[in-house]
Amino acid sequence: MQKLKKNLEAISWDEDKEIVRLLDQRDLPYKETWIEIDNYHDLAKAIKDMVLRGAPLIGISAAYGMALAAKKNEDFCVADQALRETRPTAVNLMWALDQIQAVIQGSSLDDNKTIYQKILTKAKAIHQEDLEACKKMSEIGAEYIKEKTGKKKLRIMTHCNAGALATGGYGTALGVIRKLHEEDLVEMVYSNETRPRQQGSRLTAWELAYEGIPVTMLSDNMAAHCMKHKMIDLVIVGADRITANGDAANKIGTYQVAIVAKHHDVPFFVAAPESTIDRSLASGDLIPIEQRNVSELHTINGDLVTASSGVDFFNPGFDVTPNELIEAIFTEKGIFK
Amino acid sequence: MQKLKKNLEAISWDEDKEIVRLLDQRDLPYKETWIEIDNYHDLAKAIKDMVLRGAPLIGISAAYGMALAAKKNEDFCVADQALRETRPTAVNLMWALDQIQAVIQGSSLDDNKTIYQKILTKAKAIHQEDLEACKKMSEIGAEYIKEKTGKKKLRIMTHCNAGALATGGYGTALGVIRKLHEEDLVEMVYSNETRPRQQGSRLTAWELAYEGIPVTMLSDNMAAHCMKHKMIDLVIVGADRITANGDAANKIGTYQVAIVAKHHDVPFFVAAPESTIDRSLASGDLIPIEQRNVSELHTINGDLVTASSGVDFFNPGFDVTPNELIEAIFTEKGIFK
Repeated sequence: MQKLKKNLEAISWDEDKEIVRLLDQRDLPYKETWIEIDNYHDLAKAIKDMVLRGAPLIGISAAYGMALAAKKNEDFCVADQALRETRPTAVNLMWALDQIQAVIQGSSLDDNKTIYQKILTKAKAIHQEDLEACKKMSEIGAEYIKEKTGKKKLRIMTHCNAGALATGGYGTALGVIRKLHEEDLVEMVYSNETRPRQQGSRLTAWELAYEGIPVTMLSDNMAAHCMKHKMIDLVIVGADRITANGDAANKIGTYQVAIVAKHHDVPFFVAAPESTIDRSLASGDLIPIEQRNVSELHTINGDLVTASSGVDFFNPGFDVTPNELIEAIFTEKGIFK
Repeated sequence: MQKLKKNLEAISWDEDKEIVRLLDQRDLPYKETWIEIDNYHDLAKAIKDMVLRGAPLIGISAAYGMALAAKKNEDFCVADQALRETRPTAVNLMWALDQIQAVIQGSSLDDNKTIYQKILTKAKAIHQEDLEACKKMSEIGAEYIKEKTGKKKLRIMTHCNAGALATGGYGTALGVIRKLHEEDLVEMVYSNETRPRQQGSRLTAWELAYEGIPVTMLSDNMAAHCMKHKMIDLVIVGADRITANGDAANKIGTYQVAIVAKHHDVPFFVAAPESTIDRSLASGDLIPIEQRNVSELHTINGDLVTASSGVDFFNPGFDVTPNELIEAIFTEKGIFK
């Protein structure tokens, strides 16, 4: 297994080539493949195919996608639409594209090259601000958790990957865990496998092991058993969209973990940047849930793992955790209960 | 994909060769491999390696194992011990071996050949009685469910495989489903994948599709989402051991499904033969939970699917569902609430 360069980075802008470089997360943890993308069409396909994933990272990459569209003098409306349609659940995508649209609206008198530079500058700012937001929410979350738990060594469960690989760097839920680990307060992180794409075992377990944070992989059906046996002090996850009332959409399975956490009095936290909050939706029922290709279910890493003849499949990519199951939401702006 | 012979059978006694024939369930649904076993050592290994699985089937196979020990004039105490140690959670194993021990105790004056014949006769009786028990509990369960639900077409969730492949034939939980299907009362069966061994996708989905019963495969983290969206009318599962107070051990993940079912007011049923009930244990906390090899978690069908370097794994084979989450237990003797 190859090692990534020390600083875990899933996206970067290549200043010389003026292109986007993406770490192909579908190949992790088996190999490090970097993909160079010089047009928004390929970028939209990369988002759809989950070369990259994670709500904040999807937003950042879409912003760079618009810079590529500007560089190539492509129609902004068409590019914006194509990028918006890649993944319906993560609202950071819409948020980032709205930011870019505002730049475009404010540049109607500029020449193409100037517009390109302005969009690129904005995309880089979105990237940088996300990194800073992650660090800030991680401090806020770690502080809250320390206060609540009395600074003891913690056994923490997480679901899917809300780490450096899902953001501009550092991570949201894994950012909070990183921060707690810096203060030597992490005894063990329990990472649920997260079928059907194994973000928990392929990405989170690997990302944490890479940084020397103790991690144990579980299959998705073990959470309740572990909680019953007092193995888990708290759960923390990321989010793809949070509605005005505090309901949170996140990777399929999150809602189930939240229910079993409540059943065992294990506090359940969400960490996400402000850009994940969609105040236009009153509650989680209104969040569109992406239905993904069923081949994800009957194959694992491309290999057939189940009967597919005569068997149907249901493959929702996300679920919604209602606010009453969430003890607190950490953002860079503060704590929402 | 090959077709099994119409009558799904996971074990049989070959009268000519005087050996046990086992369907290798590790290869399903990809191919039909039959293994011939002529000594108890290989049979114990087959149980341990999960060539066969399912609490009732484990019991039946162990009884045949003792017949093989008798045929070869092997030490009964050693054989009994070796078979008992194969899988700690399923109590049908102990129950079946106790039955054989009683035969041995009652045959102290007989010659070896007579003892062999007596043990073999008992093993065949255990096999036949299990099949009959499955059919009886299935009638009882289907009747109860029909009464409760007003004979509407049902959407039923199950976890792991409690079918013909887990028993002497017909199945326990899948037996109830078969019976409901015979009366045209099954709209859809939702089969949870059941990581880490995929009994749900490899065995249950395949077994139901094979019989023309509509089945949809889900990953283990989708149960709560499906219940929230009113896709599930009831849950029914098998059991590996039921204690005096009605707590039930079953494949890891069952407890989690039971909690989310309760959360959504979806009734949760268990179907199991009387031989699964262990009245010597007061409650489920006393049931030994088998810890299985961690390679099951970081591989799927032998292929590496996650980082294993620097990552720990926790792999309990079973969990315990407390009686308060179970609406009713169906056995061949009746209904226990």
